[in-house]
Amino acid sequence: MFNTIGVIGLGVMGSNIALNMANKGEKVAVYNYTRDLTDQLVAELDGQSIHPYYEIQDFVQSLETPRKIFLMVTAGKPIDSVITSLLPHLESGDIIMDGGNSHYEDTERRYDELKSKGFSYVGIGISGGEVGALKGPSIMPGGDKDAYEKVAPILTKIAAKVNDAPCCTYIGPKGAGHFVKMVHNGIEYADMQLIAEAYTFLREKLHLEVNEIADIFETWNQGELKSYLIEITAEILRKKDEVTGLPLIDVILDKAGQKGTGKWTSMQAIDNGIPASIITESLFARYISALKEERVHAENILTGPENVQQKLDKNEWIDYIRQALYMGKVCAYAQGFTQYKMSSELNGWDLPLKDIALIFRGGCIIRAEFLNVISEAYQEQPNLANLLISPYFAEKVAKYQAGLRKVVCEGINSGISFPCLGSSLTYYDSYRTGISNANLLQAQRDYFGAHTYERRDLAGVFHTNWQ
Amino acid sequence: MFNTIGVIGLGVMGSNIALNMANKGEKVAVYNYTRDLTDQLVAELDGQSIHPYYEIQDFVQSLETPRKIFLMVTAGKPIDSVITSLLPHLESGDIIMDGGNSHYEDTERRYDELKSKGFSYVGIGISGGEVGALKGPSIMPGGDKDAYEKVAPILTKIAAKVNDAPCCTYIGPKGAGHFVKMVHNGIEYADMQLIAEAYTFLREKLHLEVNEIADIFETWNQGELKSYLIEITAEILRKKDEVTGLPLIDVILDKAGQKGTGKWTSMQAIDNGIPASIITESLFARYISALKEERVHAENILTGPENVQQKLDKNEWIDYIRQALYMGKVCAYAQGFTQYKMSSELNGWDLPLKDIALIFRGGCIIRAEFLNVISEAYQEQPNLANLLISPYFAEKVAKYQAGLRKVVCEGINSGISFPCLGSSLTYYDSYRTGISNANLLQAQRDYFGAHTYERRDLAGVFHTNWQ
Repeated sequence: MFNTIGVIGLGVMGSNIALNMANKGEKVAVYNYTRDLTDQLVAELDGQSIHPYYEIQDFVQSLETPRKIFLMVTAGKPIDSVITSLLPHLESGDIIMDGGNSHYEDTERRYDELKSKGFSYVGIGISGGEVGALKGPSIMPGGDKDAYEKVAPILTKIAAKVNDAPCCTYIGPKGAGHFVKMVHNGIEYADMQLIAEAYTFLREKLHLEVNEIADIFETWNQGELKSYLIEITAEILRKKDEVTGLPLIDVILDKAGQKGTGKWTSMQAIDNGIPASIITESLFARYISALKEERVHAENILTGPENVQQKLDKNEWIDYIRQALYMGKVCAYAQGFTQYKMSSELNGWDLPLKDIALIFRGGCIIRAEFLNVISEAYQEQPNLANLLISPYFAEKVAKYQAGLRKVVCEGINSGISFPCLGSSLTYYDSYRTGISNANLLQAQRDYFGAHTYERRDLAGVFHTNWQ
Repeated sequence: MFNTIGVIGLGVMGSNIALNMANKGEKVAVYNYTRDLTDQLVAELDGQSIHPYYEIQDFVQSLETPRKIFLMVTAGKPIDSVITSLLPHLESGDIIMDGGNSHYEDTERRYDELKSKGFSYVGIGISGGEVGALKGPSIMPGGDKDAYEKVAPILTKIAAKVNDAPCCTYIGPKGAGHFVKMVHNGIEYADMQLIAEAYTFLREKLHLEVNEIADIFETWNQGELKSYLIEITAEILRKKDEVTGLPLIDVILDKAGQKGTGKWTSMQAIDNGIPASIITESLFARYISALKEERVHAENILTGPENVQQKLDKNEWIDYIRQALYMGKVCAYAQGFTQYKMSSELNGWDLPLKDIALIFRGGCIIRAEFLNVISEAYQEQPNLANLLISPYFAEKVAKYQAGLRKVVCEGINSGISFPCLGSSLTYYDSYRTGISNANLLQAQRDYFGAHTYERRDLAGVFHTNWQ
């Protein structure tokens, strides 16, 4: 009984989390279902306090009580198996943490099951990839507050820091931590797709060289677009392929994969009446990219527009693209934070939007300068209906919409698709439309299905005999 | 033992289905959980062969064997309750049909449960609303082929007819019938939204009177846009409000509701990697419409574009809108039928796309002239990858894309959102892009998550050490 924390699951993420904890002075017990990964980690150790165990019972017994056990296991059934194998060895009050990409509803189920048996369960969203896991990720823990407080000293130690503040805060009850991580990933999908669309415009419409585009992203990374994804995009565009000598980007196949959290974000939004069109379009863009053979075939059959404008003023349009990208990001984050707000109300989570923006500033994939402004918007108005209408962003988008409108129209007139820039603008214009055409939808629904409608001028529910 | 079929659930849809069957010469036993609806139906009878029962046992015992029992019960738990109450009274070989809007996965579960007990279960998608149920709906039955064949004589009798052919065909095993109905409803959402967007352009950009817009829809209904939804839109726009004397459309509140099947369509597509952006945008349009108070508030904060072009040539633009609407519909149906195709492959359903288009021509909400052309496209090429690349539609959209591009750009430059017209164009241009920007997404994913990528020139899976 001398290890302060135990880590189960020693893939790259789990090993790096264990090393991160050891580097911060914790005594870390580690265990993996198969022996090889444990041996591999131990072989690479350089004096850190990591102690391997090959029997789950020995692993558990080596931990100080209340035990703190951190799972970094593949989401789904493997987590349930590990929990089942742990249970006979635990004592009341022990705390299991799940740091994987579990669906928040699975986390809620496991929380309930373990609570009924006297154990604490903390579902922890972690973002930052391999490097973040080792050097400091963004950490989103959900569960009982008192359980969180027992593990908070370790979590805040291993988290990324921004101005000395740890990128870790208590998110809310039960599955709230994994929920926040899920939507974080959805936002990440949208952000990546927006960047890809900006890249396409620079490449296809302004006919710039890859290196010149890398310069532009580097410049953008000095200003209000400053963010990890912009930064790595510049680095990606600099990279040369060792086989061909071409820019590496030009030999990578254009079929995008996904691992699930992005699609869960869209599905949860759709299931609960939450507008999440930009994240969802980024998902559909990946799905269409996967139909590579169909696209290549269709390219020869389906024609584009005639009379495409060829000559655009370079510097003028680079700035339009910058505006478009920034406004697209604002709209995507506005949707993501609306998803937090609406889901928080639906589930009684009381999500701390201001703090969520703060812990996204470091460690995670969507870390970005403008999360400071988002946090400030929620600090000023904790019940802000939508980021777009905060004074700061309302002023920004008032200026930048001109760029976004130009870029999307130029795409349309050139036959180039901009799913996320386009849906950002659609969202913006829909959201600011006081009187929409949904009255016609309601009339149609009442006509064929007697679904009834409300009136603008009178209270109540009405049905018309239309025929 | 003299009734030929039994109907359980006597809401409007169930009563009308029972009357439809009786009108076609069936002897119909009816039963409802509460007595009132049964009494109400019987009171309205006018000599038809409908026989009410107030005990489920009496109802079952009145049916010829193998018994054919048609459920028109609220989707979800009520159906399971009815099935549970029926089971003790059934004999092996009896057939239960579910004609409600059940989720196809529930139907698959019930099918399996009942099959294991020796009963047949046929999940039947029915479209046509109240009037269709009475006078002839479109009918999409799924389950075992031999069970279907036993009920086919009744189903084809009560179905809508187009050129004497019944709008009823065997769809496929297990939940396939309800699946096809679900996506039908998704297509319906998109179709309705596209019409609403055309209406908005005519009203807001061409400043036409409601009556003049009704004229335009009537004219469109003479041509290749001919369809039930266009027809009822014209009728809706003619209708005057009895309270104010205004066009009724102008007093209906612009907050659109939904009942679930549309959102299920999007969620199934998203869960399975199927592009369904147009249906999904129609859903998000409804969700944003529901945020009425937020929209009214945002309207005063978020500004639109400057220098909006005011004067458009009326006749020229009416035709652009017609082209845009037609091409939007083609894209929406192309996505819907792709969802059929991809889901059919995923589930081994072998969905008959040609026949599905044919039975949609009558009875159902999306019945339309151009379903003939869709059916022909699949008749010519049963494995057609996408409707868009069929010779007929490829030629159409080659011509009509000019109108769609103009309308969407004009919306963007006027600050009017066209979610479905816009996403139709995005889909079209994405689908015909042989080389997309998804290579950048793959590079980003490999950079931060070591997710690996494929190359254009070499087989295999690659990972780059980017830093």
